[in-house]
Amino acid sequence: MSKTKIANQNYSLKNFDTIPMLKPHTPLLDGVDSPADLKKMSTAQLQQLADELREFLLYTTGVSGGHFGSNLGVVELTIALHYVFNSPKDQIVWDVGHQAYPHKILTGRRDKLTTIRSQHGLTAFPERHESEYDTFGVGHSSTAISAGLGMSLAMRYLGKHDKVVSIVGDGAMTGGMAFEAMNDAVQQNADLIVVLNDNDMSISQATGGFSKHLATLWQRGLAVDIDKNGDAIFTKRVISSEDRRIRHYLHMANEALDDWTSRLPNKIVEKLAEKGIPKPSQLETLPEKIANKLIDEVFPENLFKAIGFQYFGPFDGHDVAKLTQIFERVKQLQGAVLVHVHTVKGKGFLPAECDPITYHAITKLKKINPAQEKSVPVDSQKPAPTPAKKYSQVFGEFICDKAATDKQLMAITPAMAEGSGMTEFAKRFASQFFDVAIAEQHAVTLAGGMATQGVKPIVAIYSTFLQRGYDQLIHDVALQNLNVMFAIDRAGLVGEDGATHAGVFDIAFMRTVPNMVIACPKDENECYNLLNTCYEHIGPSAVRYPRGNGIGAEIDKNQAMYPIGKAALEQTIEATGEGASNVAKKVAVLAFGTMVKTAVTACQNLAETYPTTTFFVYNMRFVKPLDSELLDTLLAQNCSIVTLEEHQVMGGAGSAVNEYLVAQAAKTSQALPTLINIGIPDKYIAHGSPEQQLADCGLDVAGVVKQMQTILS
Amino acid sequence: MSKTKIANQNYSLKNFDTIPMLKPHTPLLDGVDSPADLKKMSTAQLQQLADELREFLLYTTGVSGGHFGSNLGVVELTIALHYVFNSPKDQIVWDVGHQAYPHKILTGRRDKLTTIRSQHGLTAFPERHESEYDTFGVGHSSTAISAGLGMSLAMRYLGKHDKVVSIVGDGAMTGGMAFEAMNDAVQQNADLIVVLNDNDMSISQATGGFSKHLATLWQRGLAVDIDKNGDAIFTKRVISSEDRRIRHYLHMANEALDDWTSRLPNKIVEKLAEKGIPKPSQLETLPEKIANKLIDEVFPENLFKAIGFQYFGPFDGHDVAKLTQIFERVKQLQGAVLVHVHTVKGKGFLPAECDPITYHAITKLKKINPAQEKSVPVDSQKPAPTPAKKYSQVFGEFICDKAATDKQLMAITPAMAEGSGMTEFAKRFASQFFDVAIAEQHAVTLAGGMATQGVKPIVAIYSTFLQRGYDQLIHDVALQNLNVMFAIDRAGLVGEDGATHAGVFDIAFMRTVPNMVIACPKDENECYNLLNTCYEHIGPSAVRYPRGNGIGAEIDKNQAMYPIGKAALEQTIEATGEGASNVAKKVAVLAFGTMVKTAVTACQNLAETYPTTTFFVYNMRFVKPLDSELLDTLLAQNCSIVTLEEHQVMGGAGSAVNEYLVAQAAKTSQALPTLINIGIPDKYIAHGSPEQQLADCGLDVAGVVKQMQTILS
Repeated sequence: MSKTKIANQNYSLKNFDTIPMLKPHTPLLDGVDSPADLKKMSTAQLQQLADELREFLLYTTGVSGGHFGSNLGVVELTIALHYVFNSPKDQIVWDVGHQAYPHKILTGRRDKLTTIRSQHGLTAFPERHESEYDTFGVGHSSTAISAGLGMSLAMRYLGKHDKVVSIVGDGAMTGGMAFEAMNDAVQQNADLIVVLNDNDMSISQATGGFSKHLATLWQRGLAVDIDKNGDAIFTKRVISSEDRRIRHYLHMANEALDDWTSRLPNKIVEKLAEKGIPKPSQLETLPEKIANKLIDEVFPENLFKAIGFQYFGPFDGHDVAKLTQIFERVKQLQGAVLVHVHTVKGKGFLPAECDPITYHAITKLKKINPAQEKSVPVDSQKPAPTPAKKYSQVFGEFICDKAATDKQLMAITPAMAEGSGMTEFAKRFASQFFDVAIAEQHAVTLAGGMATQGVKPIVAIYSTFLQRGYDQLIHDVALQNLNVMFAIDRAGLVGEDGATHAGVFDIAFMRTVPNMVIACPKDENECYNLLNTCYEHIGPSAVRYPRGNGIGAEIDKNQAMYPIGKAALEQTIEATGEGASNVAKKVAVLAFGTMVKTAVTACQNLAETYPTTTFFVYNMRFVKPLDSELLDTLLAQNCSIVTLEEHQVMGGAGSAVNEYLVAQAAKTSQALPTLINIGIPDKYIAHGSPEQQLADCGLDVAGVVKQMQTILS
Repeated sequence: MSKTKIANQNYSLKNFDTIPMLKPHTPLLDGVDSPADLKKMSTAQLQQLADELREFLLYTTGVSGGHFGSNLGVVELTIALHYVFNSPKDQIVWDVGHQAYPHKILTGRRDKLTTIRSQHGLTAFPERHESEYDTFGVGHSSTAISAGLGMSLAMRYLGKHDKVVSIVGDGAMTGGMAFEAMNDAVQQNADLIVVLNDNDMSISQATGGFSKHLATLWQRGLAVDIDKNGDAIFTKRVISSEDRRIRHYLHMANEALDDWTSRLPNKIVEKLAEKGIPKPSQLETLPEKIANKLIDEVFPENLFKAIGFQYFGPFDGHDVAKLTQIFERVKQLQGAVLVHVHTVKGKGFLPAECDPITYHAITKLKKINPAQEKSVPVDSQKPAPTPAKKYSQVFGEFICDKAATDKQLMAITPAMAEGSGMTEFAKRFASQFFDVAIAEQHAVTLAGGMATQGVKPIVAIYSTFLQRGYDQLIHDVALQNLNVMFAIDRAGLVGEDGATHAGVFDIAFMRTVPNMVIACPKDENECYNLLNTCYEHIGPSAVRYPRGNGIGAEIDKNQAMYPIGKAALEQTIEATGEGASNVAKKVAVLAFGTMVKTAVTACQNLAETYPTTTFFVYNMRFVKPLDSELLDTLLAQNCSIVTLEEHQVMGGAGSAVNEYLVAQAAKTSQALPTLINIGIPDKYIAHGSPEQQLADCGLDVAGVVKQMQTILS
């Protein structure tokens, strides 16, 4: 544990290099049971509170695992917000939400923080049912301005004068709905404070014109400050660790300025000098092209002002005293206000500051020998003895292998390159890799546009995020029958991230769309080869595969492609009991994706209780088109049918089986067989371990056995 | 027909005040069978061509009906684009697409234009299968930059050097995905020309910060022009009919400038004077706050430059010579370029220029007496003798009535106030009315935010556009169980607008989402009262109703609310044939929404052929929750069941019925009855009249009769 004074900062901040294994001594924090306790403190105490909060956060995240860097980055910001604003009357709305741990600590949930992400524990994100301080539930990004604006407009209508503050990360700002909301906030002339928490991630990732714009605002070394009358004034920004970047910028600016500063009036030049632009020796006129240069390079455009916001910043987001001053002042303003603060992901914990991507989230630390314990970032965990591949790795392997022989392959990700297993592809096939930032709508239509030129785009996207590109999937891909494949990761339940990240609607919303082919692999090998099959298919297709590790299946890369719309008999569990030769009952289990393995085990268990029943487990492989030949046969045999999927029953794959059988039975005047659909019931599944979640839905072996018994007895 | 020279224009343009009933004399246009023919013309001829094209457009739209104002507005722009760019090698991508008639005329479809929107005729929007010049299918707005970027990136990868031009209206620019795409275009350093067709609509409608920004750019009377070297230069913009606005701006600017111009160096002041800022008598220094003023008011922010685009404009979009010059020059540039042109909706047809909203689209003119014929805007058509109300009118009535007694009601529309029947509400309840511009994602989350404050928001949205807010419906409303009602207009087939505007997926994508209540009224009265019922329901709900007129049902405003999840027996058609007392067969038709009436007629027809069958037609009213009691009864009676809906069969209401019956039959060990699901098959339904479309799907009476026969024989 070290305490250093950062150069150019006018405050000190404790820095840590290990995660404490024992609850740290936090005398000030221990007295904060609600924001009211915070308000009694002096500014100096706030700084100490920040240090305590940061250390406490390190400790609890070590215990529970969870999001890390983004929470460390907002310690001072959260304190300043709760110090100045009167939550829960004033509404504090966190975007994305994995920056809300400090908020949870300061709003009465300090002692429960170690339970975060575990079943019945605190949720990983703000959740309205958890606390009155959690004003809006979040999971997906870019919603906080819309939600905050809604609150503000309702309050105005109701004659309330409380404030609304939406805190949005720079990454989330690229999501189109954030722009839609800013546009509307100005239109509605609403009172709304947006805090842009610019933590530089988008700069390192270079995700677009917007982040370049933020970098420009930051690099010029000026801030639009607010004076005590509420007026905007330019000030020289306090520079912390940004010296190198500023110097680089000034160098470039000076080069650009060389040819005209010599011709400026002295007084202007002096003013410019105050802003870091060197003073030339001569002065002359200001020709038109030079004026353009002045505008472009000294006073860069400001997107927020362009859209009509009152803009203040950028400010150092770790200067709690400055933040409280700014918030006190903007609180008095009316209309749409944007406060741009700059924070550092992982701030105060040096390993995370140095490697914010690895330390985005960490796993919990085991307390075997606390003295030896080191923090373990998620991505560098020690592998299990015989590690099964993650499905995202399988996808990553597939695109690298395919791109090596097929030059038409293009891969698109909306800001999920690592999570989707595309790191290697991005390096090896840089010209075929497109990270479009958090912009799912755009990602899908971009693919449609590419496909018109004869290349084959793959949109790699999480099931839950594809909900954001649904209209585009319909119009810009499927309706035009364009040749695009969706590689849908995190399909099904996702464990600790809970309901907001579950991928349990994709089958329903995709299969209703004409032209779509939808495949569900049962294991790593099928994942690889169904990706290959759908890739080679001409037209829109989707392969949905789960979060996490496979089941250890070996991948046969030389395998022939699967026939589209064909199922496979996975296993027959023959009747063995008395009279088995004269089988009394046949049950076909039509299992989709991950449920194939569960189906086999469940049937093996059931075979012991029902020895005169023969179970046929089918690996369906495709939700659309369904294997109609198989279904026709089962119908003709009047075989009992069970459908099994990790997706909502409503509208799911089983529902597709029902539709086919219903139509076919009527057409051929056959009776419908006994049928059941097993899947996720019509409710949201709370966070917990993946196993707990499956058990909750009756999708573990025991649950499937139990549900199947209803048609066996 | 008159020909006037507009003040300050350096070109002349024919103005019309009537729609010609006979094909006009268009000698130049007659020679244009493809853009190649255009390229042989002189600039002077282009102007004549524009006049001919405009007159021809007036004539053909009079014959076919269709979008009007937006097409008249892009006559010169379309000519200039096809003159300069080499389509179809260069890709011209139209956003929204209802501005593509001139494009269709110039690309070989001149003689077919009168067939537009009729079955087997030209589509109302660009359509890839229709022409190689239609580069991307469109229907919903804000997609052209994403699609164009996709084309550009694919071309770069393929080593092609053709250009891509995306033409986007100012209204469409507010859609978040346009912003996502601009952000990414800069990130990808792509070659892409975006033409912003600013037709001022957003100014008159005042839809947000973005349109205010465009107005500012326009009002300052300056343009960023491009010289022959490709360099940007400021020029005084050519002012056409904008004098009044400019004068107003200058007056305001001068007032603001008064306190500092007196202190500027002479040379600067002279330069400013060239830009329309008056010359002061004195000069002095440039203090800091004054510098801010200079930046804010003389050189306003430019959003496109902020995001990293090279910006040129605004230019007069009716000056075909200027446009060709600009396009020739920007064609030579690399990177992301935005050309801002200002056009007038309805340009050249005076009634439309004066009233662009009414003349957005027109109905076809009847050729009874061409001499007497006048143009008939859609909204001022003579009503039928006993007019049935439009469903949108019913909604409009409901919200006005309800808001009169319930102060909690808030109504939100994403730029569809007129279409959704909210004109009167917007006037009478201005403080409860929110037009958020084309921004469906934001609209839904805004409602969620409002609901947290205890008011009751209604999102009035077309079914097809709700696809844009799907993720938000899940996360920001349903998952949080917030009290928001969706009033879903244009559910089902929509006629001439075709597949891109059909609302045929909403049941599938909504019913899979927990907490949703989904209602389908059979007529105007049910629409009114189901809106009331769902409004009073606490939690997320949706009422889906069709485009166009109702069936003439009278509205009983004093009716009690419907019990949620309860169906009603609509009609029993008793068996009348021999042995009818000993009824051989019972058929229950479970009809949803608009299909109730069809079901009754179909059963009446069938009763003649099957006199020993009794038909029970149920009006289901709710898709979710279903009337489980009714279904239990039908199951117990082993009654044959037909489901009937104007929605895809896949995932639709019938599919929900199947799921319930399957689960219940298994649970109670009953056999499944004979069942069929009638709805829209798994294909896109092309444009045509609503009647033709229904017949295409087998959803007219004859089609339903035919399909029902399969379970009756």
